[in-house]
Amino acid sequence: MILTVCLNPAIDVTYTPPAFTPGSSVTVESIEKRAGGKGVNTARALHALGEDVVLCGFAGREIGRWLVALLAEDGLRESITPIGNQTRQCVTVFDGEHATVFNERGPSVTEDEWLTLLADVGRELETASAVSFSGSVPPGCPSDAYRQLVELANVCGVPSVLDTSGPQLAMALDARPTITAPNLGELLAILDGSEVDRPLLDAATELAKRTSGAVVVSAGADGLIAVSDGRAWTAAPELWLKGNPTGAGDALTAALVRGLSRNADWPTMLREAVALAGAAVVSPTAGDVDVAAYVAMLGHSIIREI
Amino acid sequence: MILTVCLNPAIDVTYTPPAFTPGSSVTVESIEKRAGGKGVNTARALHALGEDVVLCGFAGREIGRWLVALLAEDGLRESITPIGNQTRQCVTVFDGEHATVFNERGPSVTEDEWLTLLADVGRELETASAVSFSGSVPPGCPSDAYRQLVELANVCGVPSVLDTSGPQLAMALDARPTITAPNLGELLAILDGSEVDRPLLDAATELAKRTSGAVVVSAGADGLIAVSDGRAWTAAPELWLKGNPTGAGDALTAALVRGLSRNADWPTMLREAVALAGAAVVSPTAGDVDVAAYVAMLGHSIIREI
Repeated sequence: MILTVCLNPAIDVTYTPPAFTPGSSVTVESIEKRAGGKGVNTARALHALGEDVVLCGFAGREIGRWLVALLAEDGLRESITPIGNQTRQCVTVFDGEHATVFNERGPSVTEDEWLTLLADVGRELETASAVSFSGSVPPGCPSDAYRQLVELANVCGVPSVLDTSGPQLAMALDARPTITAPNLGELLAILDGSEVDRPLLDAATELAKRTSGAVVVSAGADGLIAVSDGRAWTAAPELWLKGNPTGAGDALTAALVRGLSRNADWPTMLREAVALAGAAVVSPTAGDVDVAAYVAMLGHSIIREI
Repeated sequence: MILTVCLNPAIDVTYTPPAFTPGSSVTVESIEKRAGGKGVNTARALHALGEDVVLCGFAGREIGRWLVALLAEDGLRESITPIGNQTRQCVTVFDGEHATVFNERGPSVTEDEWLTLLADVGRELETASAVSFSGSVPPGCPSDAYRQLVELANVCGVPSVLDTSGPQLAMALDARPTITAPNLGELLAILDGSEVDRPLLDAATELAKRTSGAVVVSAGADGLIAVSDGRAWTAAPELWLKGNPTGAGDALTAALVRGLSRNADWPTMLREAVALAGAAVVSPTAGDVDVAAYVAMLGHSIIREI
C-alpha cells in the first residue's frame, strides 16, 4: 500500500459563471465540487493507476464529513483524523479567460489532534511501501510538522517524497526525505530567500547536499531535473504539451512515490514521472490524470544523465 | 409566533482577499461563513427585535446540517424540511472596491420533498400570527410554489408577505398575498416584462389591482410606496443613509410581517419598515440590522398619504 498524507485537504469548488462584471450578482449554473488538496490529487492519480492507496490527513465537522463522503465516491481509502474545526474550501472562479483561485488557509488544529494524526500516520506506515507528504499545513500544527512526519517514516523504514514549500520545507530537510520534490520557485525561495535566477542543476545540487537525499525539481514545461547520490538527470516530454498545468506537480509526486514503492531505477522513475505529469496537463479536469495519455506518453520522454 | 419561509437557504461565504489579479491564486485570511438566504435574513431581523420566529425551508446533506447548526448558533428556531441534495452556498468576493456575488441555483427538490415542506409549513401555520415568503425557489419545486404556499396561509387564516420575482411572483398574485412586496425592478418586470420607466404609484396601483391585496414597493434610497384598499402612502427616511443596501429588502419584509402579526395600521407599519430597512443599510454586515439604529430612526421617517 502507498500512503499519501494531505494535512490540509479541501473541498475544491469551481464556478464557471457566464460573463460577469465585478460588483454584480450572478447565478452560477456550472458548478463542480470535489475532494481536493495536493495529497488528495496524488492519491487520486495513484488510484487511477490501480495502486492500493490510503490517504491520511485532517478533516472536521460538516465539510469534513462531506470530504470523507467524496473520497469514498472517488474510491479512495482513507484514514482521516477527525478535528473540531471545519475543513476548508477552495473556490476557483473561471471567467472564460482566467482561473482565479481563492484558497482558505484551513481549520486550526489542536496539539492533541496533531498527536492523534501522528499516531494514525504511524499505524498506516506499518503496512506502507512508500509515503508522500504534500501541500500546506493547517494553522496550529508544529512549525516542523513535516520534519516530524519524515522522521516517523524513517523510523518505520518507509521511503518518502516531500512536496512542500517555505519554512516547513526548510525545517524538514534535516530529516532527509528520500526524495524532496519542490518546484522551481519553491527551490529558489528556500535556497536564497527569493526567486532569483541561477542554474537549475546548481540549485538542485545544493539542495541535495543540504538534505543528503535525492532532489527532483519540476521546471514546468522545461521538464524535470533530478539529483541523487552525485548523479543527475534531466527528463522532459518529446513534445510541448498544451493544457492545464494545475495538478501536474501532484502527479509528479504520485509517480515518484510509486517509483519508491517499486524500488524503480532513476531513468524508469523519471520516464514515468514525465508521462504522469504530462497526463495531468492534458486532462481536462485540474488535478486529474488521463491514464490513456499516460500510457501513450511513456515512450515519449527524453531522459539524459548529465 | 411569526413564520418565515425560505425555500432556498444558503451558506453565505464572504471572502475579503488581499489585492489580487484575475488568474492568480490567493490565500484568503478574511473569511465569513453564515446562514443566508432572504428568508433567513428576515428571520434574523425579527429575532433581533425580540420576536418569536420560526424558519421553514429545505436543507440537505452536510451543508444542510451545517446550515441548521449555524441557525441554532444564531438563536433562530427552525422547522427545516430535510432533502436528499446538498444545500447551496453563495460566495461573495469583496476586492476592496466591488462585491461580486456568485449565487448557486440550489439543490434539486423532489415532489415528495415539496409535499413534506407543505405539510411542515401547514403545521407551523397553525400557531403563526403572520408568515413571510421570500427569495428564490430551488429547482424541482412546482412553478406555482408560492401560489400554493400563499393559498395554504389563506386557508389557515394567516396574513402573508410575499417577496419574490419573475414567474413565481406572477403565478402567486391570484392567491392574493396580504402584502406583495417586490422591489422596483421586480415590479416593472412583472408588469411589462421589462424594466421600463413609468410612474411608481401607477405601477404599484396596477399590481395592487391585479392581486387585490396590498402592495409595498421599495425604490432603494427613494424609500417605499404602499397601496392598500384604494389608499396610498410614500415613506422615506428624513436623511439619505450611507451603507450597504444588501439585505434592506429582507428587513423591509421583516417589518411588514411583524406589522401584520400585530395588526398595525399602515402609517405605523411603514414607519417601522423605513427604520428597519435603514437599520440594515447602516449595519456593517450585509443582511444584519443594527437595533440601536432602528430605534433611533423610528422617529425620523416621513410618511405621507398621497
